[in-house]
Amino acid sequence: MPTYTAPTRDTRFVVNEVLDLASYGNLPGFENATPDMIDTVINEAGKFCAEVLAPVNQAGDEHGCTRHEDGSVTTPPGFKEAYQAYVESGWGTLGQPVEYGGQGLPHVLSFALEEFSGTANQAFAMYPGLTAGAISAILAKGSDEQKAAYVPKMISGEWSGTMNLTEPHCGTDLGMIRTKAVPNGDGSYAITGTKIFISAGEHDLTSNIIHLVLAKTPGAPDSVKGISLFIVPKFLLDENGEPGARNGVTCGSIEKKMGIHGNATCLLNYDGATGYMVGEENKGLAAMFIMMNAARLGVGIQGYAQAEVAYQNAVTYALDRRQGRALTGPADPAAKADPIFVHPDVRRMLMDAKVFTESMRALCLWGALQVDLTHKAQTPEEREQADLLIGLMTPVIKGYGTDKGYDIANNMQQVFGGHGYVREWGMEQFVRDSRIAMIYEGANGVQAMDLCGRKLAAGGGKAIQAFFAMIDEEIAAAKQVPELASVAERLEKALGEQKAATMWFMQNAMANPNHLGAGAHHYMHIMGIVTLGFFWLKMAKVALDKLAGEPEDKAFYEAKLVSANYYAERFLPDAGALRRKLEAGSEYMMKLPAEAFATAA
Amino acid sequence: MPTYTAPTRDTRFVVNEVLDLASYGNLPGFENATPDMIDTVINEAGKFCAEVLAPVNQAGDEHGCTRHEDGSVTTPPGFKEAYQAYVESGWGTLGQPVEYGGQGLPHVLSFALEEFSGTANQAFAMYPGLTAGAISAILAKGSDEQKAAYVPKMISGEWSGTMNLTEPHCGTDLGMIRTKAVPNGDGSYAITGTKIFISAGEHDLTSNIIHLVLAKTPGAPDSVKGISLFIVPKFLLDENGEPGARNGVTCGSIEKKMGIHGNATCLLNYDGATGYMVGEENKGLAAMFIMMNAARLGVGIQGYAQAEVAYQNAVTYALDRRQGRALTGPADPAAKADPIFVHPDVRRMLMDAKVFTESMRALCLWGALQVDLTHKAQTPEEREQADLLIGLMTPVIKGYGTDKGYDIANNMQQVFGGHGYVREWGMEQFVRDSRIAMIYEGANGVQAMDLCGRKLAAGGGKAIQAFFAMIDEEIAAAKQVPELASVAERLEKALGEQKAATMWFMQNAMANPNHLGAGAHHYMHIMGIVTLGFFWLKMAKVALDKLAGEPEDKAFYEAKLVSANYYAERFLPDAGALRRKLEAGSEYMMKLPAEAFATAA
Repeated sequence: MPTYTAPTRDTRFVVNEVLDLASYGNLPGFENATPDMIDTVINEAGKFCAEVLAPVNQAGDEHGCTRHEDGSVTTPPGFKEAYQAYVESGWGTLGQPVEYGGQGLPHVLSFALEEFSGTANQAFAMYPGLTAGAISAILAKGSDEQKAAYVPKMISGEWSGTMNLTEPHCGTDLGMIRTKAVPNGDGSYAITGTKIFISAGEHDLTSNIIHLVLAKTPGAPDSVKGISLFIVPKFLLDENGEPGARNGVTCGSIEKKMGIHGNATCLLNYDGATGYMVGEENKGLAAMFIMMNAARLGVGIQGYAQAEVAYQNAVTYALDRRQGRALTGPADPAAKADPIFVHPDVRRMLMDAKVFTESMRALCLWGALQVDLTHKAQTPEEREQADLLIGLMTPVIKGYGTDKGYDIANNMQQVFGGHGYVREWGMEQFVRDSRIAMIYEGANGVQAMDLCGRKLAAGGGKAIQAFFAMIDEEIAAAKQVPELASVAERLEKALGEQKAATMWFMQNAMANPNHLGAGAHHYMHIMGIVTLGFFWLKMAKVALDKLAGEPEDKAFYEAKLVSANYYAERFLPDAGALRRKLEAGSEYMMKLPAEAFATAA
Repeated sequence: MPTYTAPTRDTRFVVNEVLDLASYGNLPGFENATPDMIDTVINEAGKFCAEVLAPVNQAGDEHGCTRHEDGSVTTPPGFKEAYQAYVESGWGTLGQPVEYGGQGLPHVLSFALEEFSGTANQAFAMYPGLTAGAISAILAKGSDEQKAAYVPKMISGEWSGTMNLTEPHCGTDLGMIRTKAVPNGDGSYAITGTKIFISAGEHDLTSNIIHLVLAKTPGAPDSVKGISLFIVPKFLLDENGEPGARNGVTCGSIEKKMGIHGNATCLLNYDGATGYMVGEENKGLAAMFIMMNAARLGVGIQGYAQAEVAYQNAVTYALDRRQGRALTGPADPAAKADPIFVHPDVRRMLMDAKVFTESMRALCLWGALQVDLTHKAQTPEEREQADLLIGLMTPVIKGYGTDKGYDIANNMQQVFGGHGYVREWGMEQFVRDSRIAMIYEGANGVQAMDLCGRKLAAGGGKAIQAFFAMIDEEIAAAKQVPELASVAERLEKALGEQKAATMWFMQNAMANPNHLGAGAHHYMHIMGIVTLGFFWLKMAKVALDKLAGEPEDKAFYEAKLVSANYYAERFLPDAGALRRKLEAGSEYMMKLPAEAFATAA
């Protein structure tokens, strides 16, 4: 059975040493985040996820969820107990507002938890994850009554939440949704339609499920401008605000999927179910985007989370499994063979995983800090800067993070040879589970278009200019430091490729928007590669500073310097190749007619 | 349910127009391969695989194989009938020698069949695939009596074969095997030990199973130099050569795997089973390598086979599924949305798949021709050239082909969005099935070392020089042709990267062999990229020549020219990035001690 240890030492390094979270103590909500509190939350969250959630991960895959004839759904063995423990420990309350029963701690800490829970048990972590997304939409757009009625019990974990967007004929293109919302005359609406792929849509973990549903009111515009958002509770609330009458929403089936078997992916039938509009009529998409942006960051975390647990198990296996001899001569002459850890190709895969997961962790925790700064930074300029950066980075974190995270999970499976392909070792589950992250919350092609078609151009390119300036500054400083110069120079070259690619888009995409579409995925990857390089440079600088002080865990900081160099040598070169592909444009990509793709016998 | 059409038009293009198979009619065994015969075999093979094997592929995944308490194994519903039809049509006899009941046709044709069967139903195709491997070992190293006793019934398909290498503690490092072979005094041996991961190790398709087993005789050297090869039939042959007494080999369990559920992956217990030595004592590895080389080419075919079927279904979906509008304005204004085929990112994934599968097909069929020429070419020089080239290319076909084929299968799943993740559409099965190809018959890291540690250096670099000369010549000619010049120039640049990488190995790997290990995987990919570029240039040249004659299916040839340009623009740039990674050497890759990989809480 695979094992998991939460990498809390590394999380503390990022939170305390790279981001210096304690230095934000003057911001509202950060005052409780004292250094002691930070370390305690990180360590306890890690312990909980490793000890309670990880042990039921494999059973979750094996048993999956079961839908019964009455439409009820049972989660896998152990999930109920684990969820109860999660609620009792109050893990869902970390980053939520104090006035609704939350702890009001910085998002950085709830993101750290999200990594650990998503690594320990992705299918499980989705239940509270979707609840958090639903909470954010109600908090942003709901009425005071709605907030008071639903949010406290969702924060406590007593109730859970869902997002209902997709219908059989539409996913990305939400303008086509058909679910209807007809006024009941009492302020509520009757919701009728079919939603599919609803994660955590029905289950036995909570006493109520609060569905957030996109639907169209009569006469609404036939486009995304005609979508409204509704709260549709599984059980309507009685006069005491407790779950009362069963509402008209039922689970018609659950999907048989490649992975995340422990999470119930439901087809939900809405049959005149009572719903309550959230925010303004026809403004549902904006409300849903609030949920979606939070969810996309969460999915980005999932991308490296599965890579992380796969990596940990691959390291153990590589040190244990003996096969062949080191190329430089026997490493353990007394034994019949050396551990496969000595083979460069195995080490390559492990190093790739190490440098990817560690820098993704830094990126995501930095992203969480930007989310907080968007609301809480002291000056409007700082708030705008944070908002620009996190808006720009969200599709990169989601798109690049999950593409590459999946690659890494596959490489870790590869370390196991044939044993990686059989179920008992657990590696193939990590691969299957992580595959979904490239698809849901907007497939990665959609992320690429969000980045290139929307975010790059927003505000006259303000966001990307801020991004370039942030990295230029780090490079300029690092080039003066001999130990960092090589990494800085390689990063400068890769950043140059990104700048050139950006320029190419500016010069060519207006004339033919297909040039943008053809290069968007390449651009997203260039930017992901550069961004992680930036975080390696940042981390290397912190490590170097620490080493000057002769710290106790010298080896930890030395490893950061080696890893930064490895990243610079092994990841950054791809930026150049991707730029060349991008600059090829769309001519040959779009030239062939549909018939040319048909298979001729 | 997914569908499959054998791409026989494209196969005929490669076999007839690119390889010009009919022109080899003067070689022994090729005289029957008349143009008519070639087309008939290709078309009928395609039809059979699409009509008989593909329809039971999804059921094979869903039901898998069942091991019963007595150790017997049942294949999935429909497999027995499909196998019976396969045998009755004589598909297993195509490329086998006439004196043992084969048709003696060129390997090119049996490889074409292997692609179609592996695409239609990979788990099924492995049963005859392993039989073919076992036949080749017996033919190469067995005694005349052994050939006469076993080969005819294996060729007919009445009996099947297996390869038994792996044991619980050793896979790659066969020097460590523990299975014992003790002389019985009558010329036979008593085989005792445990073998794992034995594909097709036990099943209900044939009346006998001929296991080829690596084992050690008493006092044999404790290394790969002490391994012998044995025939161990499931049923010993009686005086009439028919299956008689049950031999002491039983299936202890079958693995639960990520995919290829329709193939029984067995743990086999040998308990004093009677075995017959094949070839000389302690020379078993060489014999096994004959099987393995054939098998590695077969696995390379699997790599693009799953990509092919995934591609066909993704094309259908992309033309059917409507979501959003073309970036250049509505393509189908009358409908509410355009087919996703109009989106450049979807087209990118489809084009990637198209150019990969078509050039891999050309490479593999060319490889099959080299296998034949190794034995049958008229001059010793031609035979040596073919032998050098196919030896060099085998790890590239297997390693690069399956790495990239898996990527492509994943991209095709991505085209389906959320529907790609649910089982009913069949896409996730293609991904799970294709994953094994990167692992078995030597994990791809082993292929990379075979290429760089063995094949590059063999005969003083004779093989790689022949490879460079072959491509240089094609480039030089194509540069003179305006329509081909761009592809030729881009290929020249990529080939230059490979030459530089080769030189870097020569200058650095002696001093530190880890530099070779660190770059081997990169090198294998550079070479794969260059090789497929070479075949695109070849195919483009043929297409251009054809177009000059105003052919009927002009569109087919025009598509080849577009595809060659797309390949040159979108695949070749990676060669440069990979070279830069390779030239980084092994310093930072190997620098961290084992402790640095441990997760610190």
